[in-house]
Amino acid sequence: MKNRVITISREFGSGGRTVGKMVAQKLGIPCYDAELIQKISEESGYAKDFIEEESEPNAGWFTQVFADRSMGMTQQDVIWSIQCRVIKELAAQGPCVIVGRCADYVLRDEADCLTVFIHASMEKRAERIVKEYGEREEKPERRLKEKDKRRAAYHRFYTDMKWGRANNYQICLDSGALGLEKCADIIAQLY
Amino acid sequence: MKNRVITISREFGSGGRTVGKMVAQKLGIPCYDAELIQKISEESGYAKDFIEEESEPNAGWFTQVFADRSMGMTQQDVIWSIQCRVIKELAAQGPCVIVGRCADYVLRDEADCLTVFIHASMEKRAERIVKEYGEREEKPERRLKEKDKRRAAYHRFYTDMKWGRANNYQICLDSGALGLEKCADIIAQLY
Repeated sequence: MKNRVITISREFGSGGRTVGKMVAQKLGIPCYDAELIQKISEESGYAKDFIEEESEPNAGWFTQVFADRSMGMTQQDVIWSIQCRVIKELAAQGPCVIVGRCADYVLRDEADCLTVFIHASMEKRAERIVKEYGEREEKPERRLKEKDKRRAAYHRFYTDMKWGRANNYQICLDSGALGLEKCADIIAQLY
Repeated sequence: MKNRVITISREFGSGGRTVGKMVAQKLGIPCYDAELIQKISEESGYAKDFIEEESEPNAGWFTQVFADRSMGMTQQDVIWSIQCRVIKELAAQGPCVIVGRCADYVLRDEADCLTVFIHASMEKRAERIVKEYGEREEKPERRLKEKDKRRAAYHRFYTDMKWGRANNYQICLDSGALGLEKCADIIAQLY
């Protein structure tokens, strides 16, 4: 019998991570987010920051990820394969919430998933990231656009699915319009 | 004070129309779908079938819709402007559910909208259209792909938004995975 897992994909600044934690608390099940990065770091030997940045690739990432494999696996391949294994192990342990890292795709044949996407308007997300992470020299809208592009590229590369398309998820919620609490309520209720 | 309106966009075969009716019944408010076509038909003089086909354009539609306007409005322009007026009038009368016809876009500044998108997998939709509309010579998957393309083109032309993107809606639901009843419950609850 497959475990019931909630996977949460989210736009940067949408509060999807917070929604994940709220859902897990409501249901009394674990939420894996930072723990996931920690575990991948332990098993791969790469630093947590490096792994976190992996899902928001920069120009160098693209050069590497499309590189010739004749010399063996790339760093990205190594991290991706460990990430897949860690996600599958966590899902096998019992019901849980997993935030980010293409868990919906990784678990598509492994667990009984409720797949969620959390998004919000540029305006609401800009408000949120300034509140959460403070002002930076770069405008929040610019930071968001950069992050969006990178997450979309990462997602597309590994899953071959278009980021943010409704069809990829069982439920998509606008956390800016509906509020985090309501989003968490609906997800917990659907579980 | 703006009226609270639920707009439902839906993929063909997803059961979005049925969900709309269920929501309206739960909330005790009217649901406009066939009535909308009827009203546009009365005010424009065009037949109901013709109006219904308008939102699923064929090759001829594209020729006309991009045509030179020096001779006046095209048929499409006339129907679109009447459609906008009818939708705005209905929304001004009181709370309601409106299915299809880009109502979310038309009412973006007019009403306090809960914007919904209902979708389902190709497999579930194929099952549903055969059950609802019977077998045809053309395979259900082919019929669905045709309809999808046409609705996407219509939506894009009038709203300049990409059909099926999660960001365009406050909530998107996979009716195939979640079931129509559950979709209706969630929407009614969010209202």
